[in-house]
Amino acid sequence: MHEQILELLENKQYIQLKELIEHLEPADIAITFEELPERLRPLLFRLLPKETAAEVFVELDSDMQEALITGFSDSELKEVVDELYVDDAVDIIEEMPANVVKRILRHATPEMRNDINQMLRYPPDSAGSLMTTEFVDLKKNMTVEDAFTHIRRTGMDKETIYTCYVIDQNRILEGLVSVKDLLLSDYSCSISDIMETDIIYVNTTDDQEDVAMLFEKYDFLAIPVVDNEKRLVGIVTVDDAIDVLQEEATEDIEKMAAITPSDKPYLKTGVFETFRQRIPWLLLLMISATFTGSIINSYENAFLTYSVLTSFIPMLMDTGGNSGSQSSVTIIRGLSLGDITFRDTFKVLFKELRVAFCCGITLASANFIKLMTFDRVGFNIAVVVCSSLVCTVLFAKVIGGLLPIVAKKIGFDPAVMASPFITTIVDAASLMIYFRIATAILHIV
Amino acid sequence: MHEQILELLENKQYIQLKELIEHLEPADIAITFEELPERLRPLLFRLLPKETAAEVFVELDSDMQEALITGFSDSELKEVVDELYVDDAVDIIEEMPANVVKRILRHATPEMRNDINQMLRYPPDSAGSLMTTEFVDLKKNMTVEDAFTHIRRTGMDKETIYTCYVIDQNRILEGLVSVKDLLLSDYSCSISDIMETDIIYVNTTDDQEDVAMLFEKYDFLAIPVVDNEKRLVGIVTVDDAIDVLQEEATEDIEKMAAITPSDKPYLKTGVFETFRQRIPWLLLLMISATFTGSIINSYENAFLTYSVLTSFIPMLMDTGGNSGSQSSVTIIRGLSLGDITFRDTFKVLFKELRVAFCCGITLASANFIKLMTFDRVGFNIAVVVCSSLVCTVLFAKVIGGLLPIVAKKIGFDPAVMASPFITTIVDAASLMIYFRIATAILHIV
Repeated sequence: MHEQILELLENKQYIQLKELIEHLEPADIAITFEELPERLRPLLFRLLPKETAAEVFVELDSDMQEALITGFSDSELKEVVDELYVDDAVDIIEEMPANVVKRILRHATPEMRNDINQMLRYPPDSAGSLMTTEFVDLKKNMTVEDAFTHIRRTGMDKETIYTCYVIDQNRILEGLVSVKDLLLSDYSCSISDIMETDIIYVNTTDDQEDVAMLFEKYDFLAIPVVDNEKRLVGIVTVDDAIDVLQEEATEDIEKMAAITPSDKPYLKTGVFETFRQRIPWLLLLMISATFTGSIINSYENAFLTYSVLTSFIPMLMDTGGNSGSQSSVTIIRGLSLGDITFRDTFKVLFKELRVAFCCGITLASANFIKLMTFDRVGFNIAVVVCSSLVCTVLFAKVIGGLLPIVAKKIGFDPAVMASPFITTIVDAASLMIYFRIATAILHIV
Repeated sequence: MHEQILELLENKQYIQLKELIEHLEPADIAITFEELPERLRPLLFRLLPKETAAEVFVELDSDMQEALITGFSDSELKEVVDELYVDDAVDIIEEMPANVVKRILRHATPEMRNDINQMLRYPPDSAGSLMTTEFVDLKKNMTVEDAFTHIRRTGMDKETIYTCYVIDQNRILEGLVSVKDLLLSDYSCSISDIMETDIIYVNTTDDQEDVAMLFEKYDFLAIPVVDNEKRLVGIVTVDDAIDVLQEEATEDIEKMAAITPSDKPYLKTGVFETFRQRIPWLLLLMISATFTGSIINSYENAFLTYSVLTSFIPMLMDTGGNSGSQSSVTIIRGLSLGDITFRDTFKVLFKELRVAFCCGITLASANFIKLMTFDRVGFNIAVVVCSSLVCTVLFAKVIGGLLPIVAKKIGFDPAVMASPFITTIVDAASLMIYFRIATAILHIV
């Protein structure tokens, strides 16, 4: 498809090109833009129907948006800005340099400029910064017929018309009514009779992740956003909630892998930026690992007497690390999804203990057989290795289970606190356990 | 709230209870069920309005559903089953023992029984098993007015009415029209004039993750599902797509942490089941780690001469493991989100090489300073440790970047193949690199 568009553009077959584009989704046209040489992008953009142009523009990445805006004439810019939803306009503006922002705002209608400025004041990652201000508002003394007339007159520019919000003269949210309810009611019904008044809503300052989780829980298409006076100021739609859920999952995954999260896709991030996302954790974890090394030093005697002990260090450290991260990752994800809360601490602890016991015994048995038959180490050494294994797994799973919950309780991010550190903590602990048990059983002084 | 409901139930204040419940969302009532003692659950369930009862039932976990069904009279069961959407009924049935399934099917209408049986035949995790068969279908010779009449007559039981599908007499999908388009068009308009004919649809056998990703890309509320003859058989709605995206993210996270994924929440999974999810990987990784141990053994000479070398093993192994998992996790998530494809292999390789080089140099410099000033090891030892560090980071990041892409290309799951194994591979490699460099620089034979 991309090749076809490129060919039509190069051959200036604009009529065929317009016909082809008509049948494409904005998201797919946006992908084509990335494949095109830069000089052809403004040309393709000008060939798009007005409404499609705005939808495609939203899907482009910010470098491309900036390049296009720079090339726009004032009237072209105004056309695109007029078609944008306020929440999309805000997202675009947040990524642009100041001079481009000024130019965009100059070409927005006074009403839109006002909305944009208002939304730029909400904290990042809040419901206020995620919401759109374009929704259908009804009054409760309207009839269903009035409502339909109102929707027909104003609905074209609304991001969703399927949930309509009932507000009083002070814009206080009083109820909501879905288009489904409207369609299934008589024309003469009063809105106040059919509206739903038990409304789940969020505040402008609520965290966007909490808002997105409400969509997962209640299967909403949109959720109203109110200010501190309970005045309706906007709505969050389900498509934005999906993006937030995906972003938050990516962030959690990155934090668990000891990466400072970024909201840019990997291939769009520069080498230096990727380096900056990764190096602080690598440095920190490298330094903490040197403490693990110093544990080995302080038990140098054990090695000199039983040099075979060294060869089990990787196995113990790895198994401990894996056991711990299995637990911590499960609990971190459970906390993110709201399946696990602080109240469940004891349940988690008890469960991890039992699972750890089963895992420890199984691993130790397998290892014992291997040690006695293949490696043919002495019985004492086998006992040292296997009992260290059981203790390490127990320790790793309990810490892995508790640390995320405790981190969250005291206000830290569980994914950051628990996951990168768990390996370091467990590494050090497994060595301590190993050498303590070794010195005790093998009578090393 | 839960306490209040419990109190009202215990005091038999059913009228107040009914009033209270009326204002609650089904998802919240379902949470209350979990908090209630088992004997009170059927009582509360019978107090729910018929339609709410079905919605709450869907949200309960399968053990509770089974217990409730067992206590239902035949007419109660029929009432609940009648109110269920087909896709929810199928989800419930899949978790029930055979005798309960038989009882449910006996009380379904013949039409619903047929739909359920049909859907049970689709592969698990396919679009067919995710879809619902309850959608609004229109004919293209209808007018907008006809369409509204049709929606008013049949819309009540449909999972969504906001996207309507136009089919011919053989049920072949011809177009779609949104209620927004209907509302903004004249009553006399023909559906064929306003319907969208460039439809994005999926096949019943398509993977549910691919289907869910389409929602993220195109911001749909529903997507049509067709069979091999292009007949429309169902639709997938956005709320189910959200659940799939969340499940798939959880699965990826579990696989990365060397856990066999399960679709049950942590607290609902038994100890033995959790043990079974975790132990295969722990065993496998433990065994592979013993090979790492044998590398240490084969370089025993190096230790005996320079016993200080041992103390840097944890630092090298951990840093290598962290570097590798940073890369592999980033690439795995990028593959899942569709940001990275096989075509990008070279870009990934080149980027990882440069990032690894920057990280390696930084880590080595920090380490070199520490080794010379705090640890005061010899210059040669410091050179050995630091050059091993650079090589290990380079190796780890390149393998971490490439392995997921290669795994996906040859048909393996990138999260399973790349993430748990990366530590083992990098551990072994880091030791080999370390000892090779040590023997070369320190002239050990």
